Amino acid sequence: MQIALSAAEITAIVRPLSSKGATTATICGLAALRGARPGELSFLGNVKYKADVAASAASVLLLPVDCAAEPGPDQLFLIVENPSVALARVCARLEQALWPRPAPGVHASAVVAPGARVNATATVGPLCVVEAGAVIGAHAHLQAQVFLGRNARVGDGCWLMPGVVVTADCELHERVRLHAGVVVGSDGFGYEFVAGRHEKIPQVGNVEIGPDVEIGANSTLDRARFSCTVIGEGTKIDNLVQIAHNVVIGRHCLLCAQVGIAGSTTLGDYVVLGGQAGVAGHLSLGQGAKVGGQAGVSRDLEAGAFVDGYPAIPIQLEQRIRVLRHRLPALFRRVSGLEEEIARLKKASAA
Amino acid sequence: MQIALSAAEITAIVRPLSSKGATTATICGLAALRGARPGELSFLGNVKYKADVAASAASVLLLPVDCAAEPGPDQLFLIVENPSVALARVCARLEQALWPRPAPGVHASAVVAPGARVNATATVGPLCVVEAGAVIGAHAHLQAQVFLGRNARVGDGCWLMPGVVVTADCELHERVRLHAGVVVGSDGFGYEFVAGRHEKIPQVGNVEIGPDVEIGANSTLDRARFSCTVIGEGTKIDNLVQIAHNVVIGRHCLLCAQVGIAGSTTLGDYVVLGGQAGVAGHLSLGQGAKVGGQAGVSRDLEAGAFVDGYPAIPIQLEQRIRVLRHRLPALFRRVSGLEEEIARLKKASAA
Amino acid sequence: MQIALSAAEITAIVRPLSSKGATTATICGLAALRGARPGELSFLGNVKYKADVAASAASVLLLPVDCAAEPGPDQLFLIVENPSVALARVCARLEQALWPRPAPGVHASAVVAPGARVNATATVGPLCVVEAGAVIGAHAHLQAQVFLGRNARVGDGCWLMPGVVVTADCELHERVRLHAGVVVGSDGFGYEFVAGRHEKIPQVGNVEIGPDVEIGANSTLDRARFSCTVIGEGTKIDNLVQIAHNVVIGRHCLLCAQVGIAGSTTLGDYVVLGGQAGVAGHLSLGQGAKVGGQAGVSRDLEAGAFVDGYPAIPIQLEQRIRVLRHRLPALFRRVSGLEEEIARLKKASAA
Repeated sequence: MQIALSAAEITAIVRPLSSKGATTATICGLAALRGARPGELSFLGNVKYKADVAASAASVLLLPVDCAAEPGPDQLFLIVENPSVALARVCARLEQALWPRPAPGVHASAVVAPGARVNATATVGPLCVVEAGAVIGAHAHLQAQVFLGRNARVGDGCWLMPGVVVTADCELHERVRLHAGVVVGSDGFGYEFVAGRHEKIPQVGNVEIGPDVEIGANSTLDRARFSCTVIGEGTKIDNLVQIAHNVVIGRHCLLCAQVGIAGSTTLGDYVVLGGQAGVAGHLSLGQGAKVGGQAGVSRDLEAGAFVDGYPAIPIQLEQRIRVLRHRLPALFRRVSGLEEEIARLKKASAA
Repeated sequence: MQIALSAAEITAIVRPLSSKGATTATICGLAALRGARPGELSFLGNVKYKADVAASAASVLLLPVDCAAEPGPDQLFLIVENPSVALARVCARLEQALWPRPAPGVHASAVVAPGARVNATATVGPLCVVEAGAVIGAHAHLQAQVFLGRNARVGDGCWLMPGVVVTADCELHERVRLHAGVVVGSDGFGYEFVAGRHEKIPQVGNVEIGPDVEIGANSTLDRARFSCTVIGEGTKIDNLVQIAHNVVIGRHCLLCAQVGIAGSTTLGDYVVLGGQAGVAGHLSLGQGAKVGGQAGVSRDLEAGAFVDGYPAIPIQLEQRIRVLRHRLPALFRRVSGLEEEIARLKKASAA
Repeated sequence: MQIALSAAEITAIVRPLSSKGATTATICGLAALRGARPGELSFLGNVKYKADVAASAASVLLLPVDCAAEPGPDQLFLIVENPSVALARVCARLEQALWPRPAPGVHASAVVAPGARVNATATVGPLCVVEAGAVIGAHAHLQAQVFLGRNARVGDGCWLMPGVVVTADCELHERVRLHAGVVVGSDGFGYEFVAGRHEKIPQVGNVEIGPDVEIGANSTLDRARFSCTVIGEGTKIDNLVQIAHNVVIGRHCLLCAQVGIAGSTTLGDYVVLGGQAGVAGHLSLGQGAKVGGQAGVSRDLEAGAFVDGYPAIPIQLEQRIRVLRHRLPALFRRVSGLEEEIARLKKASAA
């Protein structure tokens, strides 16, 4: 990707609280503090890297108010409230070049059933399949090789990337982004054990995804046994995440990569699940609950709870126990020592 | 999805043992006990929700024999042996509307090699690719954008959903259902370390999937190094599951979402693996063995074993140890207390 | 797959150090020692199966130097330095039959933008989409239904299997193999929490994959927030693995199935991660570090470290603690016993 932004252009995008120094360099790239070269933009987004500011060769740096470093020659420091947000503004400008708005219309190679309704401002890219009764909203974008099943609904401004599958009757509200390979509406995993065989329970519900939801590559969301599997407004889901049937997720949650949630569990708003965490079925996680990476949740969580471990317990207790676990070899030795002392004392008192 | 079933129609589908009450409502939806409104059907499938029966506003309820509740006005209770099975029968009726039988034939946009054999009653949907030598059985359905490699075989009544990939030489027996994005026959992960590099071991076997197997979205099954990776009849596999090369799975097993099984491991019939469980390579799990969610199996399991934990041990022991683990802070305090007592006793006896 | 190789042909492929016995059988299949029948080839690749050599009915066996067994009638033993490598050579011959070189050219059903550059010796299979500015090198093979985004680059001899997605600006060096459903260049999972909502941080970097890398089915690799997500030369990645944005992986690493690596973590060369292991973000794993299956790495690892457990610690300590964990019930009993003894001693000394 080609970038060429002057210091003045970046200042205009970022609108800093103040600045120090100056540069005549044209910014042609972004880089981490340590790896940046002259002509690049960098930022301090994580205090962990604070020590790298002084030595950074970047021409422009986005820094927080409390950063004491001074710019070198031909170097501009822009002081901002939140360097990550400031960088995001620069990236948003770049993103427009990376992903230009596609021209509206249906590509000649797409297979769109007669009964489908495609808004005139929407884009249906090459080799997509859109079945009868499907509805595609204004400025929606099916990039390429997307499948949209019967009566599925894609809201205004949605973006479905290559290989996405949305099956019959599922619904996406406005501005949903589905990354490549996401499957919305696969069957829930439900069987009855009858005469030595697992007989399938038909899954006749759907999936409903709220506005401004984003879902990462190759994640899977099962349709409800009946009624709805629901993802609330503004929730963000990472790659390779599994959402089982009849799960109901609140608004503005964060689910990191490879998380799995079993059937009929509900999450309140603002729940955060760390990577590879698992949540058992038929549970309720209260608003703002947090779960550590790889943790296994097997009980309901109250609002604001923060748990970790397998099975998951309050994080302070889990951390205390992890420390003690590492002291088990010493504890066993101490107990053996005590047993010897007692034996000696008994012998002494018997004597 | 539009539903409109009278109480009489539902009774005819469900064939209850007995009934209580009556309703004139037309059933136009299914819902959980608590959320159901008049005009909807509900059921008691899990005793956990027993208390919700009395207050449910559903017009028709499917209930077990031992349920003592009485219907309200304009409410019909159908007493059945197994409410989940009864609901499944209703859903099966609905499913036919959701997924109508496609017309047989090859869609004009599909790319079918001259040497492929497609049964006249099969459906090859839009934008599928079928390579030379592939065989597709009677009433099989490749929905859309499916890939079927050279000499691959798809049995009668199979259903391959959008984006499924079945590579060369793999074989599906009758009525196999593969959800969107399933990959059958990717290379096994095998290398030899030679002169500082991992040299690929070609994987020239295949995958053979027995009758009535169902596999969830985006799961992956590797072809054998040589001979076969095998999935036994009636086994059900959930989403995002990894089956490595040369794994042999018995009949009627259940593998929950995100399970991983390493190479050359064999599972007997009726094995159940909980979500996110992992099984190491070259192991043997006996018939009916059960593994808890997120557990890690690193040893052979006898028939009927039930294990949990990481690494997995018999579940009773694991549960006992989990309780004791939570008491570690108290145990460390007790041992410190003992050490102090002993010191006091020694001082006293020395005095 | 049809095989028909004489003993002489196999000997020529394998080039053994020595041989014992002889066979007139034509080899028409490969099998494990125990399951092999006359007319098949087998090998001893894992000492665990040593006892199966004597009873094997295979007509040709590939065996290590230290194997003392003697061939039966009509049986040929080929003594080789490394039986697995020798088998790999036989399989490589078979692989050429399984995956014949495709004819060069662009399939009529592929959608290739005018601005794309496809080498004359490359193959673009049916229903692929290649966007403007993309570059495809000599002898590269996009098998079918592959998506290649704007300005993406595919090096000489790469092989992209059905359904692979490589998004804009990503780069594959020579001989990269991507199995079905791999997604390269999905957005990193990055948001800023502003006014109660997660605002997206645009991800404007790319993914760069070194020569001879192989990546398993349905794995996902996120593009960098800016700059590059990097996979080093010769590294092999199994199925359903998640690589987050700005991760940098060294050369010749092995990542087993369902591994997840969080953002900005770096791995040195020759790192090995067991199946389902997770690595937190912003960490550094030194050259040759090894991580056990399902382990959770939450700290930097030194070169050569071997860790296991959750959270991961040095494997010897983890193994010691696992043994002691199983003795917790006994330890609690011992401590209770000590408390009783102390009480008795105190009473005695008070008397």
